[in-house]
Amino acid sequence: MNLFQIENPKFLKNLDTQELESLSQDIREFLIESCAITGGHIGANLGVVELSIAMHKHFNSPEDKFIFDVGHQAYIHKILTGRISQFDTLRQYKGLCGFPKTRESEHDVWEAGHSSTSLSAAMGIAKARDIKAEDYHVVPVIGDGALTGGMALEALNHIGSDKTDMTIILNDNEMSIAPNVGALHNMLGRIRTNSNYNRFKHDVEDAIQKMPQVGSRLRDVADRVKDSLKYLVVEGIFFEELGIKYIGPVDGHDFEDLERAIESAKDYKGPVIVHVITKKGKGYHPAEDDKLGTWHGLGPYKIETGEVLGKKQTVSWSEFMSNSVLEKAHEDESIVAITPAMPVGSKLTRFQRELPDRFFDVGIAEQHAVTMSAGLASNGMRPYLAIYSTFLQRGYDQLLHDVDRQNLNVFIGIDRSGLVGADGETHQGVFDISFITPLPNMTLMMPRDEFEAAKMIDLAFEHEGPVALRYPRGNVPGVDMNQSRPSFDIGEWELLKEGNDLQIISFGPTVALAEEAAGTLSREETEAGVVNARFIKPLDEKYLHALGASDAPVVVVEESMLEGGLGSMIATFFSDHQYTNKVKRIGIDNEYIEHGDVNLLLEDIGITAANIHHEALKLVGKKHEKSPY
Amino acid sequence: MNLFQIENPKFLKNLDTQELESLSQDIREFLIESCAITGGHIGANLGVVELSIAMHKHFNSPEDKFIFDVGHQAYIHKILTGRISQFDTLRQYKGLCGFPKTRESEHDVWEAGHSSTSLSAAMGIAKARDIKAEDYHVVPVIGDGALTGGMALEALNHIGSDKTDMTIILNDNEMSIAPNVGALHNMLGRIRTNSNYNRFKHDVEDAIQKMPQVGSRLRDVADRVKDSLKYLVVEGIFFEELGIKYIGPVDGHDFEDLERAIESAKDYKGPVIVHVITKKGKGYHPAEDDKLGTWHGLGPYKIETGEVLGKKQTVSWSEFMSNSVLEKAHEDESIVAITPAMPVGSKLTRFQRELPDRFFDVGIAEQHAVTMSAGLASNGMRPYLAIYSTFLQRGYDQLLHDVDRQNLNVFIGIDRSGLVGADGETHQGVFDISFITPLPNMTLMMPRDEFEAAKMIDLAFEHEGPVALRYPRGNVPGVDMNQSRPSFDIGEWELLKEGNDLQIISFGPTVALAEEAAGTLSREETEAGVVNARFIKPLDEKYLHALGASDAPVVVVEESMLEGGLGSMIATFFSDHQYTNKVKRIGIDNEYIEHGDVNLLLEDIGITAANIHHEALKLVGKKHEKSPY
Repeated sequence: MNLFQIENPKFLKNLDTQELESLSQDIREFLIESCAITGGHIGANLGVVELSIAMHKHFNSPEDKFIFDVGHQAYIHKILTGRISQFDTLRQYKGLCGFPKTRESEHDVWEAGHSSTSLSAAMGIAKARDIKAEDYHVVPVIGDGALTGGMALEALNHIGSDKTDMTIILNDNEMSIAPNVGALHNMLGRIRTNSNYNRFKHDVEDAIQKMPQVGSRLRDVADRVKDSLKYLVVEGIFFEELGIKYIGPVDGHDFEDLERAIESAKDYKGPVIVHVITKKGKGYHPAEDDKLGTWHGLGPYKIETGEVLGKKQTVSWSEFMSNSVLEKAHEDESIVAITPAMPVGSKLTRFQRELPDRFFDVGIAEQHAVTMSAGLASNGMRPYLAIYSTFLQRGYDQLLHDVDRQNLNVFIGIDRSGLVGADGETHQGVFDISFITPLPNMTLMMPRDEFEAAKMIDLAFEHEGPVALRYPRGNVPGVDMNQSRPSFDIGEWELLKEGNDLQIISFGPTVALAEEAAGTLSREETEAGVVNARFIKPLDEKYLHALGASDAPVVVVEESMLEGGLGSMIATFFSDHQYTNKVKRIGIDNEYIEHGDVNLLLEDIGITAANIHHEALKLVGKKHEKSPY
Repeated sequence: MNLFQIENPKFLKNLDTQELESLSQDIREFLIESCAITGGHIGANLGVVELSIAMHKHFNSPEDKFIFDVGHQAYIHKILTGRISQFDTLRQYKGLCGFPKTRESEHDVWEAGHSSTSLSAAMGIAKARDIKAEDYHVVPVIGDGALTGGMALEALNHIGSDKTDMTIILNDNEMSIAPNVGALHNMLGRIRTNSNYNRFKHDVEDAIQKMPQVGSRLRDVADRVKDSLKYLVVEGIFFEELGIKYIGPVDGHDFEDLERAIESAKDYKGPVIVHVITKKGKGYHPAEDDKLGTWHGLGPYKIETGEVLGKKQTVSWSEFMSNSVLEKAHEDESIVAITPAMPVGSKLTRFQRELPDRFFDVGIAEQHAVTMSAGLASNGMRPYLAIYSTFLQRGYDQLLHDVDRQNLNVFIGIDRSGLVGADGETHQGVFDISFITPLPNMTLMMPRDEFEAAKMIDLAFEHEGPVALRYPRGNVPGVDMNQSRPSFDIGEWELLKEGNDLQIISFGPTVALAEEAAGTLSREETEAGVVNARFIKPLDEKYLHALGASDAPVVVVEESMLEGGLGSMIATFFSDHQYTNKVKRIGIDNEYIEHGDVNLLLEDIGITAANIHHEALKLVGKKHEKSPY
């Protein structure tokens, strides 16, 4: 069929199995071709083609509410709800979002991006339904990886006791982002392999019937054995113990199996979990054969070979950080590495291979990752926790209460700091400065290149107390690692360029923009100094006092929230000490930044050399050029 | 025995059951008498007298590591490790901490205060032990309430698959703070009532032996039935499914039972959970009979009757807030209330009683509480989430990613904002302003009295988008609710006193200090204005522009972290607009504030009328009085 004619999912109601399979084939081909150009979470979506179709056939969205956990597996849902024509803009600036988005469609009732929120959201949506005495199905779709996130387990605990009516679809593809870890994963694995237990059910019941009846005590026993059958035949005892009916396991690529299970779940009043076994990347060999999670979310690729296009020239920041820490770990036995489900994303697979006993992938469990790091540090280790900025939010109380308050030697590599691009507003790493700097014992830094990062890693492992090092998505600049530069200690900023008319202060990748702006300003006879504020906490107070005394105007550039950011700290420092320097802060002002090419986003925000140039001139009172915007 | 002679727990090794029981009796009497004077978490500690003694008898602290979850149940541990003489200073300024404290004793290896951290900490400590090839026991002690916290479940998932050697003591007293809720609680309840299953074990095995042998298929079946016995006889199938050996249930007030279980757990290699049934308040009737959780943590009481002394004259802030919301809820059917395990603490029991279908106690599960609130709001409800400031840290990502980013109508009552006193540094509610103000859609406010709070509650329920209202621990000032005051809208500050020499800006209870300081300043002919900055976000920009234009010096007083606080926001505002007002910020400067009487703590920090007076004079350049410090 012509997928481009789909306006809503109603047409599915009358399709038979053969037609559904043909539709699946069409959708798969479309996804493989479309994502080859735009990039995206192709693997996860190829795994849920049949599941998404079956859901839309047997439920009535938007009356029935689908809540996609994480949300990157909603491409088929988007196609079936009339959005295929926008797929050429997927995850691009002002284009189709890679996650559910309420303003895109009435079929998107809940937005996600982070893991493990769907069950709590479903609980809220279902209770609201019940209070309003409305009648429809609430259907969270959660992966086996997301299920190990603490809040999903908190929600199961509540749902199971409350007996709230909902159909939980457990999309078990044996992987979260990397291959899954943990006891729940093992438990699901036992279910998958033991599913032939079912056929013994009647045999066992027969056997019990034939047991010798030797008095009331033994009859009692026989009854109890019969009771115990539920443990033998019901596979999902873990869920049943929590008060949630279990249906499965179901072959997620077999329509008959899927449709039967969904219908049976729909009939059930109360919470029910349908355990659907799917294969990530199903139908596309390069993605299907992926054992590492490389095909989780990626850029454009060559369809025939699966070769990812436009590959980096230099190493990524994640790779540089993880390999540097690994080198140190080979020298220092107290160094261990922890990741919450991101061995691939954070490029820790080499660490895992070379020092397996000192490497911990704890699964999607950021809270546990942070506090376990604190525990390791409290017993003499030097843990390195690699975690994405946006996911560190999930471990905030642990960072404060367990790591910082106890002043423990935990070194946090804050991956994907700053704007991340295609993943959009749920993933931008722009809040960490604001929420970390109030923590009394923390040191927070960001290098401008890998040379500086190497020195910072040394400092971090020598320091007594918690240290966080932010690094961006993307590749290191590729500087000469054998150059010589002055050494520095914690809290020392770097003067990159002298200049008396004003100072431009920045840190991380945007230091380069500051330098560029200073260059263009010099052509207009405005001598701008450039300072690399590589420590965000503590501030370089010595430098700031000198700057305050000079009364030079200051432009602060940060790829981060202005609220609680470096510019605000500098302005406050000047105010505390009654310096009167003018300060212009450039950064993200009280808004969420959506998905799109990072350069386009930066331009929108005003984090460009041209805008720094413009604001600098305004500040020094020279000719007020026309704004570049 | 004379408890005051205890220096360390070694003396326990040689005590027989009778001596242990006598010791328990002595400790109980001491605790009841001591806490009657100091206050404290008496109920929880009376429940673990025998357990703590048995642990110290059979393990060797500090070589073996005890990790107390939450930590308020460590009083007996403190007594047995030589700290009884400090109990008259319990939870007081510079006195004995109510929680484990590493600097108090080598026996305190991990500090807590918040719930559900012990298993992650134990995992870190145990892995460090294994990496260093050391040999000792790691013994987390976790309550049944804390077990439902998401991070504890994350940790169980990891521990069970990793097979890390540790002895988990599950202290099941059927209550967390309030009576427990949730499916795990129900599951533990089934174990408690079904424990006589055990005695059927041999009978069933006998029966299987006698089954007719009618061919290989049925023999196979018989074997499987035998396998299934583990489900019949092992009570803790939930834990066994997670890969953790289960021992129990054990009577936590019976030394023989306890000691046998602990010895058997010690012998086991790998993770084992000892399920100990205890009674909160054991041995003291007023505490034992408590069904609500009133005896969780409290002030001084009369021993004979259990009557709590020094009771409030006016209603508490929690009571005022919850009852006001309840009144609104009687008028507006879309209003629902959520609490994470604090129906008593947040005084929501009346709401629970009067509108049970619109009240949700989700247990110790802050993340779920926040996102479930978002889910309710996304489906048309007006949820009111009452949560302590310090525990909101646990739901930070949910607040950002689910509530604020989706701009949902969630109204958060931030209970215990500001200093909390006796609970100390793990519980001070002083970070929320810093971590909430960077959230783009949030409105954050704090009333100075209940009259203002009532209006703010109206505003919150009318507003489109998330709103947080901070309120302190303790009682409302008790103002006349029938007075008339000008109405106000979101973002409008209140000028309480005119004065041209300088302005003192504060919010919440410290507004009264600002007024007091302005009064004493007027005696020195310094006319200070007083402004009630009741909205922390958004700021009253109209007022701040006027203030900026006046160039008057400003003192900002906040019972909160200075980093990312109101003073910093005001200084930054002035800087952004090139106003040159001098600003003095008074608040908590980059440090954790320990336990003690709030007034003593405030004096240490400098949040007193005298210090505001002093700083104000310094700022206006009048005679520089001697500092009150």
